[in-house]
Amino acid sequence: MKILVMGAAGMIGRKLIERLLKDGQLRGTAISSIHGFDVVEGSFQDTGSIEVSMSAGDISDASVVDALVDHNPDVIFHLAAIVSGEAESDFQKGYRVNLQGTQNLFDSIVARSGYCPRVVYASSIAVFGAPFPEAIDDEFHLTPLTSYGTQKAIGELLLTDYTRKGHLDGIGMRLPTIVVRPGKPNLAASGFFSNIIREPLSGLPAVLPVSEDVMHWMASPRSAVGFCIHAAEIDGETVGPRRNLTMPGLAITVGEMIAALEKVAGAETASLVERKVDETISGIVANWPRKFVAERAASLGFTAETSFEDIIQAHVEDELSD
Amino acid sequence: MKILVMGAAGMIGRKLIERLLKDGQLRGTAISSIHGFDVVEGSFQDTGSIEVSMSAGDISDASVVDALVDHNPDVIFHLAAIVSGEAESDFQKGYRVNLQGTQNLFDSIVARSGYCPRVVYASSIAVFGAPFPEAIDDEFHLTPLTSYGTQKAIGELLLTDYTRKGHLDGIGMRLPTIVVRPGKPNLAASGFFSNIIREPLSGLPAVLPVSEDVMHWMASPRSAVGFCIHAAEIDGETVGPRRNLTMPGLAITVGEMIAALEKVAGAETASLVERKVDETISGIVANWPRKFVAERAASLGFTAETSFEDIIQAHVEDELSD
Repeated sequence: MKILVMGAAGMIGRKLIERLLKDGQLRGTAISSIHGFDVVEGSFQDTGSIEVSMSAGDISDASVVDALVDHNPDVIFHLAAIVSGEAESDFQKGYRVNLQGTQNLFDSIVARSGYCPRVVYASSIAVFGAPFPEAIDDEFHLTPLTSYGTQKAIGELLLTDYTRKGHLDGIGMRLPTIVVRPGKPNLAASGFFSNIIREPLSGLPAVLPVSEDVMHWMASPRSAVGFCIHAAEIDGETVGPRRNLTMPGLAITVGEMIAALEKVAGAETASLVERKVDETISGIVANWPRKFVAERAASLGFTAETSFEDIIQAHVEDELSD
Repeated sequence: MKILVMGAAGMIGRKLIERLLKDGQLRGTAISSIHGFDVVEGSFQDTGSIEVSMSAGDISDASVVDALVDHNPDVIFHLAAIVSGEAESDFQKGYRVNLQGTQNLFDSIVARSGYCPRVVYASSIAVFGAPFPEAIDDEFHLTPLTSYGTQKAIGELLLTDYTRKGHLDGIGMRLPTIVVRPGKPNLAASGFFSNIIREPLSGLPAVLPVSEDVMHWMASPRSAVGFCIHAAEIDGETVGPRRNLTMPGLAITVGEMIAALEKVAGAETASLVERKVDETISGIVANWPRKFVAERAASLGFTAETSFEDIIQAHVEDELSD
């Protein structure tokens, strides 16, 4: 079992590789090698039995992608993308990497006859844009309101069609917003969802820039890695021709998040969250999905946390222990 | 008012140019020139006041598209595409023309700062694939089951995002199956919808290869041209950010079509339709949409025939008169 992880230096990519190294197998077969690729080179501890290698480059260059596919990985995790904010500010770069880069990967696979790897594609709930119904079901249309969301939606369509034609065996995962992201606070509009939990748990203040009744769709980094593994292992036949699935998550208001923080870590910790509405961030977030009914993914065995206490607990165990 | 028609040699392209020449104006402004482009060169009668020119080439070549956009047309009708059957049999050609060609057009427009033409994009109900609800509403998701439908869906997403960013001013029309197509019978799986009307009206036999209870979504060539004109003239603000619209049409069974033919042209004419089920065609058609509720387009002033007698009448007037 040879594995390629594109986007290996990102938060999910790194955690996925750690998990694969720990599991030692995928789809019931021992992993022989993992190659991690990103725009910057990462580093991993060699575990002995699994050969781990890393390289860096730009997926908008077809020859770079060809070199990765040349190794005939059995499973490819395509997590590489220019993130939402940058795809919005640099229109051409976003299309070059997120659209052309994805086409380069798929076309490189097509060019190898008889080769049909499982491709796990990280899409996003950003493929959906307001106005929304109260809860978004599995048949709601693709209505992105950002270039990033558009590029992800196009990747979904390509994945489905290339799979239908037998050129690859794709599963697309529409990831919820991932909370609690480890590391330093960042300036992404969605950053506060993690900041208001992570910072207080470390005794630091954090700002809540939106109203407490803002609801959003979330899952932990641990669940995101679980989605990747399950998407790699699931039988494509049971998924059927619609290969892109809204991943399960938790619909919860910011007020409920803070209440859960207080329950887990006490009133003093929760009091480190300062309410200070930012009109710009509030405006952006108003166009984001609040709640999904991810029935298909649930029926196919994808699972996520069902309480926010569990999401906090996953963060404590995975980031704040030992 | 300078107009570019891409796909000018196709059935709708030719009829659109004829209509524009007859109208002499678009969006309340006199038309000064029409340039028609296709993979093969067409020919049109010069009407004196409007300069009509034609050229031929391949839109998957960016320099070819650049040369067309160089004339700064105020309105661009992008009707050019590899059709469904060929996009399915020649995977790479379909993507090259239908996806890369469309990207070439949009990117050529982006490259000209301060230039923001109305782009009328011919999409198709092929962006939808079974299973369907009883009637498909304006919020049903994009679920193409063909490469052609996938490429059209991707074009829709690009059109919306490029419009949102102010790079162009696009309106996408999801065209119904166009009936009655003039000309000779063709081998397209959808050909019989036209054949069973057109051939008997000319005293010739035609084969119905599916069951009489097959329902489908149709509009006349005249309505298709009307959609193009209205899409060119409509105020983008009233359309809002969701720029792709399912065009109005008529949901009718094949049996009802033949009954309408009998009503208009008599029992002898209708008896020229021979029932002979073709399992392959029946299988393909089983995955096609039967019925839409095209509320958004209707509320925005797009109109189509509401009875099949009217569709037959449009054919008689436009193709069989004088």
